[in-house]
Amino acid sequence: MQIERPYLLFLGDARDQLAAKTADGIRQWRPDWCVGQWRLAGCKADLGLKDMDARAARDKGAKTVVIGVANRGGVLGPSWIPLLVEAVAMGFDLASGLHQSLKAVPEIAAAARKHGRKLSDVRIPDREFDVGSGAKRPGKRLLTVGTDCSVGKMYTSLALEQELRKRGKKADFRATGQTGILIAGSGVSVDAVVADFISGATEWLSPANDPEHWDLIEGQGSLFHASYAGVSLGLLHGAQADALVMCHEPTRKHMRGLPHYKLPSLKDCIQLNEQLARLTNPAAKCVGVSINTSHLGKAEADRLLKETADQLGLPTVDPLKTGVGSIADRLS
Amino acid sequence: MQIERPYLLFLGDARDQLAAKTADGIRQWRPDWCVGQWRLAGCKADLGLKDMDARAARDKGAKTVVIGVANRGGVLGPSWIPLLVEAVAMGFDLASGLHQSLKAVPEIAAAARKHGRKLSDVRIPDREFDVGSGAKRPGKRLLTVGTDCSVGKMYTSLALEQELRKRGKKADFRATGQTGILIAGSGVSVDAVVADFISGATEWLSPANDPEHWDLIEGQGSLFHASYAGVSLGLLHGAQADALVMCHEPTRKHMRGLPHYKLPSLKDCIQLNEQLARLTNPAAKCVGVSINTSHLGKAEADRLLKETADQLGLPTVDPLKTGVGSIADRLS
Repeated sequence: MQIERPYLLFLGDARDQLAAKTADGIRQWRPDWCVGQWRLAGCKADLGLKDMDARAARDKGAKTVVIGVANRGGVLGPSWIPLLVEAVAMGFDLASGLHQSLKAVPEIAAAARKHGRKLSDVRIPDREFDVGSGAKRPGKRLLTVGTDCSVGKMYTSLALEQELRKRGKKADFRATGQTGILIAGSGVSVDAVVADFISGATEWLSPANDPEHWDLIEGQGSLFHASYAGVSLGLLHGAQADALVMCHEPTRKHMRGLPHYKLPSLKDCIQLNEQLARLTNPAAKCVGVSINTSHLGKAEADRLLKETADQLGLPTVDPLKTGVGSIADRLS
Repeated sequence: MQIERPYLLFLGDARDQLAAKTADGIRQWRPDWCVGQWRLAGCKADLGLKDMDARAARDKGAKTVVIGVANRGGVLGPSWIPLLVEAVAMGFDLASGLHQSLKAVPEIAAAARKHGRKLSDVRIPDREFDVGSGAKRPGKRLLTVGTDCSVGKMYTSLALEQELRKRGKKADFRATGQTGILIAGSGVSVDAVVADFISGATEWLSPANDPEHWDLIEGQGSLFHASYAGVSLGLLHGAQADALVMCHEPTRKHMRGLPHYKLPSLKDCIQLNEQLARLTNPAAKCVGVSINTSHLGKAEADRLLKETADQLGLPTVDPLKTGVGSIADRLS
């Protein structure tokens, strides 16, 4: 799956900044690939990129309109479709990480055929997998896990890849979600594989490697999320992680999308992840905590990081503020 | 999905009796629907039905050849395909619970089109689901869980349906696997849904009901199975079970398909299932143990049932030998 660059990031009518996390991640980790953002009336997200529509972006050389907004359920907004059809007619490829396939929308598929453009549905696996074998394989693995969805697992994994490579270690980010795949250029959307193959797809994604090589595997969901815990557990078993990093967003009032569910404590969440991970890797251990403090003031953030580190006895970072060096120190 | 009866049960070259568990279940719970069994050279399974090929079964009035054998990975044996094509040409419909779709085999699809016959892939969901909401819904629910795959969850659920109905209670078996669907006439193969929707599909399968009504939900896999635990956890969360029944096969030397993985103890397995079930139903409780003692002598079986009951303080049954009355007593 090869997606032509540069990108125009389509935000649609995103209901909040978090809904645009796909676009946000691409802008953060691959800024050189982003020509601008395309926002519709009512859009509540802003990437700080120049606003432009398809025509203006085409004049700036953009090749692909990337659907950078994720809804609950993962469907295309009906009002987006004529705009996307128009972009295809203008010469754009489209790429999307939604559950609903671009290819399954008749108007979009027809336009792509007519104009010879490419539709990339990065969330929909383009191959089949075996069931997980649970067999040990060489190489080292780190999996980011979380108290909830959308708490910084991908950012933390990417920051660790960057840090380990800076230190001269062999390390690869392994993408398991739509944004990660758009950033990594490859990967598997594990929440889109057939349920029987969650752990098998994860084993495929992170194959046998040099004994000193680290895979930094992007986690998904949470063992405490009533909608998605099955995916999280299959990923945990398939990853056979030596190291876990617990990710957390401290201002979350309830589990994302589930107003009647509270977040677990970091301690309970670490304990359960370690316990269940040990089915396939008895040495699995949490080596750090990654907290997204973007909604806190500096003093409050500093205090929370220190208190958490003291309480849990683990290096505790905010990847975008403190870096992830103290966690990388634990990865020998 | 309506499958024409009666059935000819196709066992192919099943490597052991367990591989023919789909056919076994249909024969056990719907004997009147089964005209005979169709076995190929090397078949190690036997249902005790009359052996016949498609031609003989057609003369007995059979309408559908049911693929009653399950392989690891769920694919059709290449040697089966010409035989199935021949059966379609003879006038049979085909029904299969394998992952690989009958409709995806060009020769079979072509024969079905040519002869106007129906292909039913019961494992492949024929609708889309929402993500799980985790919201409480009325009605009572029991989920069968297990120490491993293929340890009697479906049998136990069906036996409880039979027992509760005999007692005049409202109760419905809810099928989550291919055999169950062939027996119930409806259901969802939860291991074949897209991973994000495991708990959502389970919520759909067991909707709001009368406060006194029991759903008997067929479990899948095991929280301790390195290949399938994700499915088991999504099912556990979606079921919101009030009652769990732990199913076990005491002669299993290792987890099915995983020679390097031992079975968990009943106690650990009950503890973990209760703990994780309480995310979506804080009242979840194990109310009994169901042991498949078919590989034990009578004295040994009796002793094991009694010892397990004493040790765990729970009614312990073998559905086919003792019935499930002592567990039904706990379902008010």
